[in-house]
Amino acid sequence: MSAHSIRILGLDPGLRHTGWGILDADGNRLKFVASGTIKPPTDQDLSLRLLGLHDEIKKLIEEFRPDEAAVEETFVNAGARSTLLLGQARGVCLVTPASCGLRVGEYAANKVKKSVVGAGHADKKQVQMMIKVLMPTAKFNGADAADALAIAVAHAHHRPALNRREASL
Amino acid sequence: MSAHSIRILGLDPGLRHTGWGILDADGNRLKFVASGTIKPPTDQDLSLRLLGLHDEIKKLIEEFRPDEAAVEETFVNAGARSTLLLGQARGVCLVTPASCGLRVGEYAANKVKKSVVGAGHADKKQVQMMIKVLMPTAKFNGADAADALAIAVAHAHHRPALNRREASL
Repeated sequence: MSAHSIRILGLDPGLRHTGWGILDADGNRLKFVASGTIKPPTDQDLSLRLLGLHDEIKKLIEEFRPDEAAVEETFVNAGARSTLLLGQARGVCLVTPASCGLRVGEYAANKVKKSVVGAGHADKKQVQMMIKVLMPTAKFNGADAADALAIAVAHAHHRPALNRREASL
Repeated sequence: MSAHSIRILGLDPGLRHTGWGILDADGNRLKFVASGTIKPPTDQDLSLRLLGLHDEIKKLIEEFRPDEAAVEETFVNAGARSTLLLGQARGVCLVTPASCGLRVGEYAANKVKKSVVGAGHADKKQVQMMIKVLMPTAKFNGADAADALAIAVAHAHHRPALNRREASL
């Protein structure tokens, strides 16, 4: 990691699976650091499942010391209950890095895909292939981890605009 | 607060207004402690708004030292975007007490109303009047704070069942 590079933690929120990906960005040069998937236990009360997610994100921040974080602005049309559950996981993905002092960018799904593939409607396979092109050493154990890396790539591209609140709510 | 009483923090989540209410429950006897409304700044990035909510809840826990917390299982039919926003605030209301070591109960809105008024479809005015009957010293500065006290009342009534996961997801 050079003196000028920024370490970014990307998060793809979900209550069952939250993907995470970390990269170092030095201008346009991107370097893969790590990725994975957080799967909080499903047999517990909701507050404990969310706490599991919170604890895992905090551990990642303590281990990898990212400078900034980025979370996908997900939309699902799977009914109010699913949306509420997703929102809860998303709330944890936003507040945990913020409580550790990290600036957190938000990116709509089509903006993320455009950053990686150049088109807003790329499929998961195309995103994964482009992640490998952008960062040949990248490893990911599934679509959620790859998506999280894509979110980190989007943040690397758009973060100079963050102060203009372009990427915020 | 007697040696046998349990201090309960009730939370009525919302991104613009999160109501909170604290009471001491000693068997069936309830004693009002405090209530209020958290209004995170609206002109910031979502992660900072959620962090504001997180910090205020943490401050309440540090000041009043509740033993347990309870959060309303809210449902709104105001579109996916509103539901997602509500979910995010709710995620913070669930994870913050859990990260402070508190057990967190969840109660559906009609269960809360039934606990307070005896009917699942009471209006806000009826809930507020019954809070005053149950706890004559209760003070609340609005409907959100009164709802939060009602959630704490529901938890006081239903917490023995929590271990059977009746009130959980």
